[in-house]
Amino acid sequence: MEQLTVEKWGVFELALPGKTDGNPFTDYTIRGRFEGRHEDVMVTGFYDGDGIWRIRFMPSFTGEYRYTVFGSFSERETSGSFHVREASEDNRGPVRVAAKYHFAYADGTPFYPLGTTCYVWTQQPDGRITETLRSLKEARFNKIRFCVLPKHYDYNLGEPRTYPFEGVPMDSSVLTKENFRDYAEHIDEGNRFDFSRPNPEHFRHLEKCILALQEAGVEADLIVMHPYDRWGFSRMSREADDLYWRYVIARFSAFRNVWWSLANEYDILKAKTEEDWEHYAGLLLQEDPYGRLRSIHNCFSFYDHTRPWITHCSIQRQELYRGAELTHEWREQFGKPVVLDEIAYEGDIQHGWGNITGEEMVRRFWEGAVRGGYPGHGETFLNREEILWWSHGGKLRGESWKRVGFLLDILREVPGHGLKYLPAEWDSVCGIPEDETAAQETGYRLYYYSFMRPSFRVFRFDGDTLYRAEVIDTWNMTVSDAGTHRGQFRVDLPARPYIAVRITKA
Amino acid sequence: MEQLTVEKWGVFELALPGKTDGNPFTDYTIRGRFEGRHEDVMVTGFYDGDGIWRIRFMPSFTGEYRYTVFGSFSERETSGSFHVREASEDNRGPVRVAAKYHFAYADGTPFYPLGTTCYVWTQQPDGRITETLRSLKEARFNKIRFCVLPKHYDYNLGEPRTYPFEGVPMDSSVLTKENFRDYAEHIDEGNRFDFSRPNPEHFRHLEKCILALQEAGVEADLIVMHPYDRWGFSRMSREADDLYWRYVIARFSAFRNVWWSLANEYDILKAKTEEDWEHYAGLLLQEDPYGRLRSIHNCFSFYDHTRPWITHCSIQRQELYRGAELTHEWREQFGKPVVLDEIAYEGDIQHGWGNITGEEMVRRFWEGAVRGGYPGHGETFLNREEILWWSHGGKLRGESWKRVGFLLDILREVPGHGLKYLPAEWDSVCGIPEDETAAQETGYRLYYYSFMRPSFRVFRFDGDTLYRAEVIDTWNMTVSDAGTHRGQFRVDLPARPYIAVRITKA
Repeated sequence: MEQLTVEKWGVFELALPGKTDGNPFTDYTIRGRFEGRHEDVMVTGFYDGDGIWRIRFMPSFTGEYRYTVFGSFSERETSGSFHVREASEDNRGPVRVAAKYHFAYADGTPFYPLGTTCYVWTQQPDGRITETLRSLKEARFNKIRFCVLPKHYDYNLGEPRTYPFEGVPMDSSVLTKENFRDYAEHIDEGNRFDFSRPNPEHFRHLEKCILALQEAGVEADLIVMHPYDRWGFSRMSREADDLYWRYVIARFSAFRNVWWSLANEYDILKAKTEEDWEHYAGLLLQEDPYGRLRSIHNCFSFYDHTRPWITHCSIQRQELYRGAELTHEWREQFGKPVVLDEIAYEGDIQHGWGNITGEEMVRRFWEGAVRGGYPGHGETFLNREEILWWSHGGKLRGESWKRVGFLLDILREVPGHGLKYLPAEWDSVCGIPEDETAAQETGYRLYYYSFMRPSFRVFRFDGDTLYRAEVIDTWNMTVSDAGTHRGQFRVDLPARPYIAVRITKA
Repeated sequence: MEQLTVEKWGVFELALPGKTDGNPFTDYTIRGRFEGRHEDVMVTGFYDGDGIWRIRFMPSFTGEYRYTVFGSFSERETSGSFHVREASEDNRGPVRVAAKYHFAYADGTPFYPLGTTCYVWTQQPDGRITETLRSLKEARFNKIRFCVLPKHYDYNLGEPRTYPFEGVPMDSSVLTKENFRDYAEHIDEGNRFDFSRPNPEHFRHLEKCILALQEAGVEADLIVMHPYDRWGFSRMSREADDLYWRYVIARFSAFRNVWWSLANEYDILKAKTEEDWEHYAGLLLQEDPYGRLRSIHNCFSFYDHTRPWITHCSIQRQELYRGAELTHEWREQFGKPVVLDEIAYEGDIQHGWGNITGEEMVRRFWEGAVRGGYPGHGETFLNREEILWWSHGGKLRGESWKRVGFLLDILREVPGHGLKYLPAEWDSVCGIPEDETAAQETGYRLYYYSFMRPSFRVFRFDGDTLYRAEVIDTWNMTVSDAGTHRGQFRVDLPARPYIAVRITKA
């Protein structure tokens, strides 16, 4: 018999027949133990419908593993073994926090999250899903935030392709642009969902999308709860929430590109309290054996990002005028990586969060990145079809996405794991390598001039060391050599906004 | 004998022969009493060189006045009478604070200061002075900030046309762009000025400039002290300062378009303390019988603008990212008009305060104006001749100045004295008339969308009143009718930045 093999950080999955009488989602258990030379992991499985029970495991080491699967779902234990081979070339493992404020894959390769948001791209027709994946690749986004649950909001009044629970939704033909908020406020009649019966089809489809992202090298920042709801999914009982959370964790946690975002705009989920969030976090700590990245995203006020279960800050700006500009303060305040998951959307819709220019978006990207944070993109352009990237994915229409890969390349050239803010000058933003040794050895400095447009700048360094200066046009995506210099020297600049200067020891 | 006449808010001036032995600037006094039916004013005169003593008086009422001039400058008193006729058409009197946060001429006409800064335009050759006056007129600036003393700084290393005191300056041929700061730090050798002997020629020329501004309808915001100095004028003794202040007040206070700015960037005038500033303010209160507008301008930290002698806040922004955006908070904090005398300069020089775009400057103008403040302009464009509007005046080279008159027209159409901020929406800036009755009667609202670019906005007003909507393109300077509406209505917008909507009862 040929031995079963799986690659490191891949998924070993078993599909087993089991009980189906009563409510299999609530009436039975399925657990598994996976033992290798370097780890011994207990995981929870789930009922996938049609009489099939599944259990998934991500091995973190190579070599032989043994497993046993047990629980009330079946009369008998199942056990066996498999072999874990080296990870294939594009598989660098899950992303972890590294160097306190940054990220790296499990194999040590630094990871610089430059992501985007398409809340319900998975709920769209297949053609648009394919288009979204193509757009992500073209823009070189390496993370995407999206919802597990369907979305009800402006420009999101249609039906999702599937519902997360068995049942029948309210009649959406009564919805208009004017009254849709009322339905969100008064979820009640019309919806007939059984919150004790997840709909496997919904989650199976999400898994396909997660795997398609993995294939494309994109991290899946899963938003498990959110307030944009007309079906009642944001107001379930504790018991129903627990079932939902356990089901989500059991199905998704083995995929190495999954990140957990407990909620989008947690603070406008009126039915939930801080105690609820801490409870869900507890479930994650208990049920996700891989300790995937965990965050919780705000609308008005930050969650307490110092809570130990939070691995990184997922931040929406709290002011109209400053956001990315405060990145270094937030790093200081919370002592964690700062991911600016909403710094407004490039677009032209009516809402102030969704109508900034491409230039302003790229400016915010650089403000955040040079200060040692990781900005996120989004797009909300009006169009006849009302297909907005921010929710639906599809085509990218703006200007900022074209400039994300360029920033990624600049970040990849930073010695060490990433940048930190140096308050060097009042009228520029200066980033240096987080790692002190790297900073000293390379003399690396990245000065960003934001909306200002100097014709030249004067630098003052020591007279002994030879430095190379490069002029970076962050909008036109060029890097120009500006010669080598010692001591006090002048670098001529193009007197346009969005220029940076990179200095390194020659 | 024909009766002497002068117009209301004009200047009645007497030139009298007097003593010249010793030091006439310090050894003698000259005072005058001016009595009309409605006022009885004591003023101080000054020695104008060449044996001539002068005394000036601005009458605030029409009718007959009697005067007596006396003091140790002469053995005999001089007295006489003159007639004050009605003000001529363009003479609306001095500007005062009105409606707490705004300004008006003495005749009651609202005044909306939209000014600029040309620190030492008066020190330039005649041709450039003429050009500056032409530029002011073309841009419709109605206030200009400038210095009484010459300026030593980047792009300001040349000699002024005159010095304020008798004496000989240091040799400026030793100055370079690199070393000029050292000379500012170590004022000492080289300069031989007699601070007890003002140079009347210097002040006579300033008066000509003040009058030329008056002729052009421009307020002269005189900066009496400033830190940009290589001659020692910023580090004189208390005795010398007092002589200087008294001389300035005696010469200039009768001109109705004079405003007093005690200092530019008071907080980097290292030789002066708060006690000094309070002392100079005391001299102004005592010696300026007209109570002209008084302010003091900061570099890093605000002076305590709640001090009773301060008539209005003259503010330089304290942050890189926000300035005009805080206008309404400063109004609240200080309870006085807020004049944003430095919100950075449109230009392209190396310094972050001097290289913003025209678009950003106009954006700051509207941010400040809609919040009920009065923004000020400035320009610092590099050019071969190193003639920068900010210091030298001359030609305007940017884009923002062209849009100042348009804002002025919009402000003139506000019912009452000006705008105040209404926190109506999180994603727009809303201004309503300061005067509550005017606000209610007209329903006037001015919504400004700043860097955002909505394709449309939805408004919600009462269903009974008919409102007119107008779309204002603040950059292209157009006002377009957007129809009349009731209740909830939508206004289509051009999806470009820098758009405003004006709503008024139809």
